[in-house]
Parts: sequence; structure tokens; C-alpha cells
Amino acid sequence: MLRVAVVGATGYAGGELLRLLCQHPKVQLTAVTSEHAAGESIEKRHPSLKGFLSLALEPLEVKALSARADFFFLALPHRTAQTPMAALLGAGKKVVDLSADFRLQDPLTYEKWYQASHSEPGLLKQVVYGLPEVYSAWIAEAQGVANPGCYPTGALLPLFPLIKNGLVSPNETILIDSKSGVSGAGRSPSPTSHFTEVNEGVEAYNVGVHRHLPEIVQEVIRGGMTSPRVIFTPHLLPMNRGILTTIYIRLNRSLSRGEILSVLSSHYAKSPFIRILDGSPNPKNVRGSNFCDIGAYIHPDGGWAILLSAIDNLVKGAAGQAVQNMNLMMGFPETAGLMSPGLCP
Amino acid sequence: MLRVAVVGATGYAGGELLRLLCQHPKVQLTAVTSEHAAGESIEKRHPSLKGFLSLALEPLEVKALSARADFFFLALPHRTAQTPMAALLGAGKKVVDLSADFRLQDPLTYEKWYQASHSEPGLLKQVVYGLPEVYSAWIAEAQGVANPGCYPTGALLPLFPLIKNGLVSPNETILIDSKSGVSGAGRSPSPTSHFTEVNEGVEAYNVGVHRHLPEIVQEVIRGGMTSPRVIFTPHLLPMNRGILTTIYIRLNRSLSRGEILSVLSSHYAKSPFIRILDGSPNPKNVRGSNFCDIGAYIHPDGGWAILLSAIDNLVKGAAGQAVQNMNLMMGFPETAGLMSPGLCP
Amino acid sequence: MLRVAVVGATGYAGGELLRLLCQHPKVQLTAVTSEHAAGESIEKRHPSLKGFLSLALEPLEVKALSARADFFFLALPHRTAQTPMAALLGAGKKVVDLSADFRLQDPLTYEKWYQASHSEPGLLKQVVYGLPEVYSAWIAEAQGVANPGCYPTGALLPLFPLIKNGLVSPNETILIDSKSGVSGAGRSPSPTSHFTEVNEGVEAYNVGVHRHLPEIVQEVIRGGMTSPRVIFTPHLLPMNRGILTTIYIRLNRSLSRGEILSVLSSHYAKSPFIRILDGSPNPKNVRGSNFCDIGAYIHPDGGWAILLSAIDNLVKGAAGQAVQNMNLMMGFPETAGLMSPGLCP
Amino acid sequence: MLRVAVVGATGYAGGELLRLLCQHPKVQLTAVTSEHAAGESIEKRHPSLKGFLSLALEPLEVKALSARADFFFLALPHRTAQTPMAALLGAGKKVVDLSADFRLQDPLTYEKWYQASHSEPGLLKQVVYGLPEVYSAWIAEAQGVANPGCYPTGALLPLFPLIKNGLVSPNETILIDSKSGVSGAGRSPSPTSHFTEVNEGVEAYNVGVHRHLPEIVQEVIRGGMTSPRVIFTPHLLPMNRGILTTIYIRLNRSLSRGEILSVLSSHYAKSPFIRILDGSPNPKNVRGSNFCDIGAYIHPDGGWAILLSAIDNLVKGAAGQAVQNMNLMMGFPETAGLMSPGLCP
Repeated sequence: MLRVAVVGATGYAGGELLRLLCQHPKVQLTAVTSEHAAGESIEKRHPSLKGFLSLALEPLEVKALSARADFFFLALPHRTAQTPMAALLGAGKKVVDLSADFRLQDPLTYEKWYQASHSEPGLLKQVVYGLPEVYSAWIAEAQGVANPGCYPTGALLPLFPLIKNGLVSPNETILIDSKSGVSGAGRSPSPTSHFTEVNEGVEAYNVGVHRHLPEIVQEVIRGGMTSPRVIFTPHLLPMNRGILTTIYIRLNRSLSRGEILSVLSSHYAKSPFIRILDGSPNPKNVRGSNFCDIGAYIHPDGGWAILLSAIDNLVKGAAGQAVQNMNLMMGFPETAGLMSPGLCP
Repeated sequence: MLRVAVVGATGYAGGELLRLLCQHPKVQLTAVTSEHAAGESIEKRHPSLKGFLSLALEPLEVKALSARADFFFLALPHRTAQTPMAALLGAGKKVVDLSADFRLQDPLTYEKWYQASHSEPGLLKQVVYGLPEVYSAWIAEAQGVANPGCYPTGALLPLFPLIKNGLVSPNETILIDSKSGVSGAGRSPSPTSHFTEVNEGVEAYNVGVHRHLPEIVQEVIRGGMTSPRVIFTPHLLPMNRGILTTIYIRLNRSLSRGEILSVLSSHYAKSPFIRILDGSPNPKNVRGSNFCDIGAYIHPDGGWAILLSAIDNLVKGAAGQAVQNMNLMMGFPETAGLMSPGLCP
Repeated sequence: MLRVAVVGATGYAGGELLRLLCQHPKVQLTAVTSEHAAGESIEKRHPSLKGFLSLALEPLEVKALSARADFFFLALPHRTAQTPMAALLGAGKKVVDLSADFRLQDPLTYEKWYQASHSEPGLLKQVVYGLPEVYSAWIAEAQGVANPGCYPTGALLPLFPLIKNGLVSPNETILIDSKSGVSGAGRSPSPTSHFTEVNEGVEAYNVGVHRHLPEIVQEVIRGGMTSPRVIFTPHLLPMNRGILTTIYIRLNRSLSRGEILSVLSSHYAKSPFIRILDGSPNPKNVRGSNFCDIGAYIHPDGGWAILLSAIDNLVKGAAGQAVQNMNLMMGFPETAGLMSPGLCP
Repeated sequence: MLRVAVVGATGYAGGELLRLLCQHPKVQLTAVTSEHAAGESIEKRHPSLKGFLSLALEPLEVKALSARADFFFLALPHRTAQTPMAALLGAGKKVVDLSADFRLQDPLTYEKWYQASHSEPGLLKQVVYGLPEVYSAWIAEAQGVANPGCYPTGALLPLFPLIKNGLVSPNETILIDSKSGVSGAGRSPSPTSHFTEVNEGVEAYNVGVHRHLPEIVQEVIRGGMTSPRVIFTPHLLPMNRGILTTIYIRLNRSLSRGEILSVLSSHYAKSPFIRILDGSPNPKNVRGSNFCDIGAYIHPDGGWAILLSAIDNLVKGAAGQAVQNMNLMMGFPETAGLMSPGLCP
């Protein structure tokens, strides 16, 4: 059994990691950390896990933890994962980081969007961007992996097949209109996630300035585009989990709906967590699961495709994808501990 | 007091008309109709109105009703308002129709999108499209008014100032991504509005084939565009009321955000129900009110504008706009019975 | 026009007061206060009110405000309303306090439940408990009124007719199972009102130790009971507004359902905001309104009555009742500015 | 592998059975039936299961199915499970029936509450009431099991330890106030489960006349009470899954809170799906799981206990408990395929 530690275990991504890992056939959870809740039982912070774990939260001490765990998940706030990543890699551990700290390969881009200089710029090229459907070969060899953001995951998975198949001009404009549940905002109370402020409403936020924008741009360029214009508008919806991403993009030749669905299906024929649908995806059908459901339409006038994807932001958008990355890094079956259907309704 | 009848009073639009009209200073409700609930007290169908109305539902009989009412609201299903409209206009009554039956001016377009021939094509040019912020002069003279659809209302109000001010090329592509609450689907139970099917999910529907598309196209052409490509994707959200519309459109010259907000503010300086916001609109702030809140952003790369509007689909998107039209048709103050703030939270 | 100030205007009760008062035919809002948001426009804190008020928030300075307002609403946190109440009463102003500071007549009871001594115990007997359906005569003469808690309002209104009509033994056990929306918890973010912690769940809280318990006990004793045992269990539900209260109580003689409904109807024949229903009340039918809907059932075995009430916690449970109290204190019609139906759906 | 058929597979209980069974280590799903959707792929009705099952729905034909399955779950509407149960038992199959048809042991009680005579009264004593925490020995020997109702499950599990330990007088009054999510009402659209009718509201229904009442009465009598008065009030809440049950009962001697928690813990020491909590249970913590979380409080005045339980109505209240019964009937580990934590948030 692989000895695993979850660093930053009290938030939603941390809790979801625990839920998945306590059922994983090849994993033994040996440590859970929290700076502000050290000493507490993990059950107190995650009552749904009562009976599944008997660990107490402890502070993050790399040396002490290194003796008890061989694989680490970092579920820490942005800007606080850099030092732990460096220390753990230095100690020979394998690490998946769920924060944004190692997603952007260019330290200047990081600095611009996260308003802080990067303390470990040398690691940025070494840590692999962990989108398994695109980079599985690199992930399998990686010691450190940067787990993608939830919005980029939902946006990139439908886009890659079109880009890779040359269906999109390299300078095209990509419009991404994302609708997210509230758990993506984390577990810390704030006015924008207060029940009565969110319920019975819907709002665009960080229009044009969301930090997942440079991550999407980086990846569509790595996918083959040259100078894309990406317009990304996230919206907050009154639901717990899930992101529906609606993408509008002009194709460089005329395709029928059947053809574009066929392109998607072929591209993902060997990807166990991608399901191409005849109809429209809905996050309710992937709730609690690691699937990304994808649908596509062609505008009657031709030229424009409408791509739709649904993920659970805490699973395929965070903890599930992180476990999928661990599976690849450890040579486990890619689906180990992850192949369960969504909980619906 | 104007004697008013609501035809089709048991649905959500009908109930909302009753809520507004029973508080209207110049109106006396004299009749409410329903074919399937004739004989019942209106309170039984709308318990929230208990104590405000003592009318019983009755079948629609134009001759009998004509003796008791001078102004009629038709809140009937699509395809069933044509004959009543003709009869009531023939009887010299003024009518606002909340169905889609008189919104499209071309009977062939109607036939194509509503799968039925129009029984009163001669009235299509006579009945005025009732978007008061655009056609108030015509509405004031009209005997019959077609109340706009909820999605077109939310889409057209932010677009018109740009089109009228020549900021959009006449053949431009307009992308409209709308997010609607469930009351827009009406009060009849169906799988797609079953609580557990809607709650904790979000889904695009009728992608590219929604019936509000030709209505939007008709109006942007009347506004001055020549051959627009309109891509319209409605989404269903787990909330009772409200539509947030996100519009992506390329401008034909570079504008700052301040400039576009200024264009919007100037255009609607005399429109009492339009509020231009510094930030992002949210349907929660217009709930139960007749306001349309509008915001705007410019993509950092320039060229593209992101317009956002929020309405209550049952008020500005249906009953409130219908009352606003009645006010104009009767020479009442445009805001009579309508100038109350939203209910938030 | 009565010049009115709202002290503590940024929370939900404050916002609801503003919504009601800006539409009140006999009121002019002249001041709104906030300590932490002083200087800001009130619209910024309550975007739904945009266009209705042009006031800026200011700190509470009794002397300065006294020159500009004659009637004060205090919507402050518990324990902070005592000094302002004393100062304003001393300045000859009329005041309705929405906090709990003057609801309990016994300073020792206050001290026990609010963990603080009362700084103005001498005022406790002078300030009237503002449940208008019970104490309207006293309220009409009062200079200061303590607005009841939301739970006590929902519990006491169905109970009083039974107690007053001698249908309940003076030592009876009263079981009150209340289900509340989240706005009752206020506008300050906290883990217990975080969207994802509340949504899709329901939980009892403060079982046996909720601060509204002594308030209910005080009032059923003033109503005529001697030594009641009150078991009160509040539950938090995933909805914005509304309290449904389910009350179980043994009657001291056998009554049919018709008889108990008749007792309720007779008792409240002259209470404009009480509606006795044939069926079951639902907060959705009183949303945004000042009504308290009441229903009643008799257990088939006889002996036990099940009483149900529905209120909007922010209106009849807070701001609406406060305005109703103002109306009585000022000799306005009791329903002035309050007689509108609920917003449903 | 046990060959299993799900009869009535398109509803919520049917879908939940499929979700659990497709992951069960000892089960092979071989048939799924539906009368109205025969011929369709099961994935079409349950898109969340896409990729997990490749079965087509077929009509229920006992002879044909008997060749392909050895264990049957009946997830049919009440009144339609009697004939299939008789036929399948006659064919030597083991059956768990999720309807109410075999829960009540007295055919006259069934007839009174379900308005129909029972076609197989002879089977009523033979089919075992499948509450595993109470009747596991009988279930292990049973050929047919009647799966308990969701409300009775939530009410009986906290009550049994008190009754069995003699803490409740045999004629005591038991007050059960239940709060349920909407999935308990099934998947067929109806006005009472229409999104906009349920959302932002809460309502008691079937007060005093709910069909789960006689089931609860039957079981507390079997548990040892003589002539209990059970007052049961179900409430419908705006959430998908979950029942919170609040029970008020007078104890026949004074117990501290610690003592009652200790009684509960001892009683369920060997029940893997019962968790006794220090705090208050919340359905969100058992969502998607087979747990029943139980909490308890003592009213300060003594004498009364407040018991609280939380279950997922579709799992412990339906499909999960049915699988638990199958495990017992087949000699599988009681927890096989069921021991996963809830999905939270």
C-alpha cells in the first residue's frame, strides 16, 4: 500500500481527497495536516467521513511527515505550496499540488496574475501540468505534478481535439462562458459565498481578469494555437458542485454535428473519464465522479461550434484528477479508486 | 378605474399579473379566466393572493367579458391567443398578449418556428411589439400589443444602444448566452422542471433552435443590422426567477469600459426601468421588480464587449412589462403600479 | 411626512426596513447609519435599492441624528442597542428596537441568556413587547417598542388564541419545531451560513438552548399559562426567507378541526395580517409580505392539536412587524405601507 | 456472481439500486425492467450511469427473467408489487420489495391505508420487514423481504433502543416531525414536486394521514409498546435527498444526555451503518451513503428526550437498505458494496 499524506486537509478539496483515498485500493492514508486545526480529529472537520479515518490533524513538518508518507497531495492556498513542494521533491517524495503555484510555466506570468514573485521558479519547468488526457506520458514520469484549475479542465478538454485536429485557426477567438457551483470558492466563509447572497441569483465575476485565463491561454498555445484571443467569463451559480462550460468557437471548415461528435469520440477513445454525449451535458450527471461529459452543436449558419462540458469541480476539477495523476505517476491503473458513477439526483 | 380582465390567470405569468394589478392605483380587476379551473376561487390557485381578490375563475367568453372589462391581458399558451386577440380587438378592447403569437411579424417565420399556420396574419403588422424602451411611441397608439419574450427582453435591451449608436457592424455575429430560472418554463409539471431534475444542475437546452431566436433576429434587424448571425444558447438554472444574459459582441471601434457604460447610460437616460451598473448585474437584485440591470466590460485585447443584463423573467420578462405597456397604451404614468424595488435576499 | 432613521442599515433587517420604508406613504427616510460602512452609498450595500434612496451611511451620533429624524429603527446586534435606546428615548424620540435587548422584561433572564448584564434595566418595563396582534393598545401608547424575535412571532401567534380561550392547561407542555431560512442568521459570513454548508442539508441547532426560548416562555405566561414546559427546536433550512413553525400541544378538551379553525378565525377577525387557512401554510406564500398564515389539525386520536404557521422572517419576523409597530405608535393605519401580497414563486 | 434483476428501473429508487449494484463486488446485473420504457437503453433514463451498464429495459416477464436472474429487487409503485412477488417467490427466487405492499402485516390495515384489498394476504406473514438493525436474523432466513419506508427507517432507528431498554412507557405519545427532500416523492412530475412550487418553501403534508404512520405504529408495538399514540408530521423541503427526523418523547425516568447517548451507542455497537453523534445529525453528511446518523438531547426540565436522525432517503431509506437486506439474505458481508462515505458538500 502506498503511504499517502494530504497536506491541507480541512478544505473541500482536502476532504474530497480523503473521501477518494480512503476507498482507494492501493492507498493507505497516513497523515493529514492543517495549520489552524492541528490536534483536531479529521472527523470533526469532515463529519461525513466519520468511521473511515482515525487520524488527527497535525502541522506540516516535512521531515516528520517524510518518514510516514511517500506520496503527498498539497491542498494548500495559492502562494503557500511553493516551499513545501521544493522540500518534498528534495526529500525524494512524489507530489501532486492542487494549488495554482506550479501551473503557469512562466514565472513572470505567475507574478503578474498572483501578485507575488515565485520562490521556486526553477521547478516550474520540471513540474508537469497534470491534465491526464493530454499529458499522461509526461505525468507518468513526473515527480511533481501541478493539478489543473477547475475551469481550465472544463474548457481545455473539449477544445483540445479541435485544436489538435487543425479545425481551429491558430489566431482564433475562443469564447468560454463557465457556470460554476459554489464549492469552487472554497470553504472559508465570505460575503460572496454566504448562502443568502448566492441562492436565487447568478452573477458573472472577475470578468476578463480571472486567474484561470492565463492557464487556459498557456495550454491552447501548447496545444498548437499561435496567438489565440481567449475571452473567459466565469459565473457563480446556486449549486454546491459542478461546472458547465459553454464554448463558442469558429471552425476553419464546415462540419456537421455528427462529424464534430465523431472527432471528439475518436480523440478520447482511450480516455476512460471522457464521455461524449449525443445531448447536452449536465453537472448533475457527473456529481461526485471523475467524468467529464462533453457535447457539441453546430450553429445552423455553419462556421461556429458550440461545445459544452460538465465536470464536478471537486473531482475531475480537483481531487479526482489529482488521484488520477497519482495513479499515472505510480503506475497504478488510471482508473483505480475512481471508477464510480455520479450521484444523481 | 380601468376595468381589467386577465385571460389565463392560473399560470405564473397570470399570477404575477394579478399580483401587480391588485396593487395598481388605476386598475380594477373585474374578471379572471381559466378553462380548466373555471368555478374555482383564484385564491385556491394563488394562495399568496389570499385576501386581495374575491374573483372566481370563469371560462373565456369574449362577449360576456366585454361587458365587464375594457382592457385585457392574454396569458394563454402559444397558438391559442390568436382568436381571442382578433375577437377582442374587434370588440374595440385594448389587449396585451403575453404569448408569442403576435411577436413575429412574418407569418411564415411564425409558421416555421411554431409548427402551425397563423390564423390572423392580417393582425401581425397591426399589433405592436411591446418593448417600451424601444417602441414607446407606437405602443402608446396601439390597440394590441405583443409582449416580448423573456430572453429577447434580456438580450435586446443591452444590444440596442450599441446598434443604434453604430458601434456594431451590420453583419456582425452576436453570441448570447442566457441563464434562466425555472419559472420561465411555466407552471405545468414536466420532467424538465421536476425539482430533483433541476436542482443542483445546469444545462443548455434547445441549442440553436430556441423559439426566441427569430424574435431576437427580427428585432436587431429592425434596430439597424442587416444580416446578423445570432448564436443564442439558453441555460436552465436552479432558481425560481431571473435571467442573466451574457452577450459577446465585437465592436467596430475601440471603446473603453467607461465609454461603453456612458453610451448605455445616455441611451437609457429617460428609461425609468433601466439601471446601468458599475459592476455585474445579478437577477437577485431585480427579483419581483420591473428593472433591467445592465453592466458592460471590454475584453483587455479590445474589440470585444461583454454585456450583461439581469431581469426578473416574470416581471420585466412578462407581467411587469405587460403592465408597463398597459400604462403607455392608457396614458397612465409609465411607472404606475410598477415602481418598487426588488426583494433581496 | 414622518422623518425616519434606520440605525444599522447594512444588514438584512436594515435592508428590509429600507425596502418597506422607501415605499411607505407617510415616511421620509432621512438617515441611515453603519459604523463599519460609514461614508458609503446605501446602494452599494443594497444594490436592489438602486434609484430609491440617495442617502450615504453615517455613524450613529444621537445628537446629530436627532435633528434630522423623529422616529428611529434600531437594527443593531444584540447587546448594542441599550445605550442608543436610552439616548433616543431621552431625546424624546420614538424607537422600535429590532434586537433582543428589550424583549425580556426580567434583567436576570436577559443576563442569563445573553451573557451580559443589561445597562438599562429600568427601561425594560417601559419598552413594550411589540407583537401588534396581542399588545396593540400598549404599542399605540409606547415611546419605545421591542420588536419580537422571528421564532417567537411564528410560535406565539398560533398559540395565543388557544391559551386565551382556555383550551390549554396552564402547566401544559408545548412542543415547537421551527424550520427557518438562512437570512435569519444575518448577513455576516460564517461557517454555518456558508452556501455549501447549508445547501442540500437541514439541521437542528441550539437544541434546548436557543435564546428565543425565554422570550416564548415569558409571553405564554403573560398570555395566561402558569408553568408551561416549552420545548423549542429550531432547524436551519436551505432557503433564503421564511419560517414554518409546527406546534404540538395537548388540548384540555376535545375539539374538531373545524372548531379549532373557528377559534383561530374569530380571535384574529380584526387582525389584518393574520390569515387562517383551510390547508397547510407555506412560507413561499408570504414571502416578502407581512402576513402570518396559520393552519391547524387535530390528531385522529383526539387530544393533540398540530398548529402550523408561516411567516417571512425578515418581514413579519422583523422589518414588517417593526413598521406595523411604527404605524400603531404614530396613529397611522396599521396596514400603511405593508398591505402587499407575497412574491410567489 | 449473483445474477440480479431490478424490476422498475427508471425511477429514483431503481436508479439508485443500479448505482449501488453496478459497483457491488458480488453482483452481476442481468436485467432491468420498465413497462413504459421497454426497449430503451438504461443510460438514456439514467445518464449518470453511462458506461456502467449496457442493458436495455424490458417488460417484466417473470418466466423469461427467471432464467436470467436469481435475485430480484422490486422498485414498483405501491399496489403493483403483489403479483410479481408471489410469482417470483413461487419460482424460487429471492426478492426484496421496495414498495409498501408487504410492510404491513395486517391486510385490513393495508386495505384501509392503501384503498385496495391485498391480493396476496397469505404472504404478509411470510415476507420479513427488512429493517436490518432490528430483524437481521429473520432477514437472513427470508426468501422475501419488505424494505421499510424511508420515514419509518428514520423514525424507528432512534426509537428502538429506548423502547427495548424500557425507557419509554408502553402507552406513551411519540411525536415525529420529519423533514424530507423531494426525491422521496419519486420521479413522476407533479405540481407538488415542480421546482418552482418546492424551492424556497417548506410545507407539512398529509398531516395525521400519511401512509407511513401505520408502519411506524406496527413496529413500535412489535418493539414492545402496547398502545402508543404516534403523531407523525412529514414536511417537504427544498433539497434533493435526505430526511432529518426530529422525535420528541417523554422518558419514564430521568436520564442525562450522556446516558442516552450511551444507551444508543451500546445498542448499535455492532450495527455498521449506525453512527451515534455528539452533535446534531445532518442529511448532508450521509448523502449517497447507507448511514443513519443519530443524535440526542434531553430537555433541560428533564423528562423529555429529543432524538434526531439523518438518512439519505434513497439509500438507507430505500436502495441501500435493500442491498443491505440482499447481503444478509445471501450470506454476503452486511457491508458489501455499501461501505462508502457520504458525498459532502
